[in-house]
Amino acid sequence: MQHVGTFTVKAADGAARAGELYTAHGVVHTPIFMPVGTVGSVKAVAPDDLEAIGAEIILGNTYHLYLRPGDELVARHGGLHGFSSWPKPILTDSGGFQVFSLSSLRTLKEEGVTFRSHLDGSKHLFTPEKVVSIQRNLNSDIMMCLDECPPHDADHAYAARSLGLTSRWAARCREAYPASMVQEKGNLLFGIVQGGMFKDLRSESAAQLIDMNFEGYAIGGLSVGESKEMMFDILAHTAPLLPAEKPRYLMGVGTPLDIVRGISLGIDMFDCVLPTRNARNGTLYTSLGKVNIKRQEYAEDDSPLDPACSCYTCRTFSRAYLRHLYHAQELLAFRLNSIHNLTYFLGVVRGARSAIAEGRFADYLRHFEALYDK
Amino acid sequence: MQHVGTFTVKAADGAARAGELYTAHGVVHTPIFMPVGTVGSVKAVAPDDLEAIGAEIILGNTYHLYLRPGDELVARHGGLHGFSSWPKPILTDSGGFQVFSLSSLRTLKEEGVTFRSHLDGSKHLFTPEKVVSIQRNLNSDIMMCLDECPPHDADHAYAARSLGLTSRWAARCREAYPASMVQEKGNLLFGIVQGGMFKDLRSESAAQLIDMNFEGYAIGGLSVGESKEMMFDILAHTAPLLPAEKPRYLMGVGTPLDIVRGISLGIDMFDCVLPTRNARNGTLYTSLGKVNIKRQEYAEDDSPLDPACSCYTCRTFSRAYLRHLYHAQELLAFRLNSIHNLTYFLGVVRGARSAIAEGRFADYLRHFEALYDK
Repeated sequence: MQHVGTFTVKAADGAARAGELYTAHGVVHTPIFMPVGTVGSVKAVAPDDLEAIGAEIILGNTYHLYLRPGDELVARHGGLHGFSSWPKPILTDSGGFQVFSLSSLRTLKEEGVTFRSHLDGSKHLFTPEKVVSIQRNLNSDIMMCLDECPPHDADHAYAARSLGLTSRWAARCREAYPASMVQEKGNLLFGIVQGGMFKDLRSESAAQLIDMNFEGYAIGGLSVGESKEMMFDILAHTAPLLPAEKPRYLMGVGTPLDIVRGISLGIDMFDCVLPTRNARNGTLYTSLGKVNIKRQEYAEDDSPLDPACSCYTCRTFSRAYLRHLYHAQELLAFRLNSIHNLTYFLGVVRGARSAIAEGRFADYLRHFEALYDK
Repeated sequence: MQHVGTFTVKAADGAARAGELYTAHGVVHTPIFMPVGTVGSVKAVAPDDLEAIGAEIILGNTYHLYLRPGDELVARHGGLHGFSSWPKPILTDSGGFQVFSLSSLRTLKEEGVTFRSHLDGSKHLFTPEKVVSIQRNLNSDIMMCLDECPPHDADHAYAARSLGLTSRWAARCREAYPASMVQEKGNLLFGIVQGGMFKDLRSESAAQLIDMNFEGYAIGGLSVGESKEMMFDILAHTAPLLPAEKPRYLMGVGTPLDIVRGISLGIDMFDCVLPTRNARNGTLYTSLGKVNIKRQEYAEDDSPLDPACSCYTCRTFSRAYLRHLYHAQELLAFRLNSIHNLTYFLGVVRGARSAIAEGRFADYLRHFEALYDK
């Protein structure tokens, strides 16, 4: 058995790489996509669905779980794995992003961020130490440092001040959970590179975090409203700054093409609500492109949603039936569509892994560029 | 292979009996509970869930399926079995009950009933011949005759006029689908006894229907607002009037205790939205009585919902987690709760079957009377 946190690059093709990350709940094969299970449930699907789909690691949201049911309750019920009956790895975010996007009356200070719950208006304080403590209660395999995510149009001065705070908070997270505790406790801690849309600030942020010796590095503050061109420009600058021997995680990204492009730049881990949220809106990803299952053209379509897919939905039901379920707003529609979209996203990263191992990743990327350029 | 429609009583204990009903899609072991799949989906659960639960036959609503996606579309996609990927028996109601409970601007005539769709206000006519044709398109294993279900407080004159119409409509259904067609087409046709809360009218209705030689007989117009005492008084009068060699179906009933009491009076088949609707409201049936999973007392309860249950929900999750999912209004809650409640209802009828075979049905009934008298 490897030490937790061990990350081994098994194959590379250009900047793209295929690796294995050891965690306390098993190995994660990268590149990987992490389904989002905000409150301890990937919306509309159950743990047995996730295993059947081939999910290797899911994401939980610290902000939500802290507010309800509470991290201490989760700790008393076997952590998030025991509470939600998901035996495989879990990554939790730091809660920072949700504090800024969901809660009201935020007050940002050196100490941390004070906010009011979006559920009941109650007042709370997240400090770097507090979010580590919450994530330790959840017993996340991968914990994230508290960060501030500046808006995509933040100016250089704002982004510089913000990354300074993010770095000082990261240092406090590392101090609260030093590298010397990792093997004993089993949780990994990742730092988050910020710096807005400024390459000099991204370089500064990366350098400061690398000095703190995290078990992995995330790139935050992208896919927050900026153009795709800008996002990939910053990503192409930032990814190579991160240690090759540690996993790299691009937070909150993205479409299938975004993910494959991210992999081409050396990213190993991705999460996004896109497959599950779009499933609930009737937008489905297939090997032939996107399908809007609501459309009249599928009313009599007896073919499977995606003839190349072997998920339960595609093995069992026709497009006509899926369209009917969607229009009738049957609860089953949400599950069947989510099972398919998650299967598709996990197939994208598994396909990338094979392509890297076989030295044909450039072709793989071109395929997705063509598919989504229609 | 038996002829479709063959009903064999395998064991009896008092008036209660355990039987087997042969249909074109397999045998149904009675007494049986039929989960309700209104629009071609038992809400929140999939066909593989239903098979795992041990469901033998489900119910579809003719009114809903006629309006959306349309019975002709369903016919083009392999009938309701093919369209919804449910390979086992299906019973469909006649649509009459929904016309009276859901649609607007109903006009009742000898010919049939004119109504406006609750979906788009469009105008439609259900005749006895039309509802047989719709159910033939759905390829239901058990079709129901069009009936009028009078309100529970209908007076004798109203109930008498109504049952006359129901009997004339039943004769037209039988004419549209005579007994001579059953073996060739594979669909069975059941008549529905009406007559309100008047025993003389129930006797009259039963006698008229029996003359028409249906493959089974339903008792309608109960559980529509009358007292339990009244319901069981009418049921105790009506059930013995029906031919012992044909299946007897009590429509829209009921609670677990109602079902066991119905079995004690010689009823073989039941359907009700109670297990699935209550599942979505957080009311769960267990071997220890009802559990309102919303309650604070379950917040830290690590035990399974029902320690005596082996469904996926009880095998996998704690009450604390189920409470959390319910409060967070996660979609998974609806599925997990529905899986459990349906498992419970199917266990009730399966248990009754064993009790009948073993000659201890009176004890079984007493157990349920005690359990739900708390």
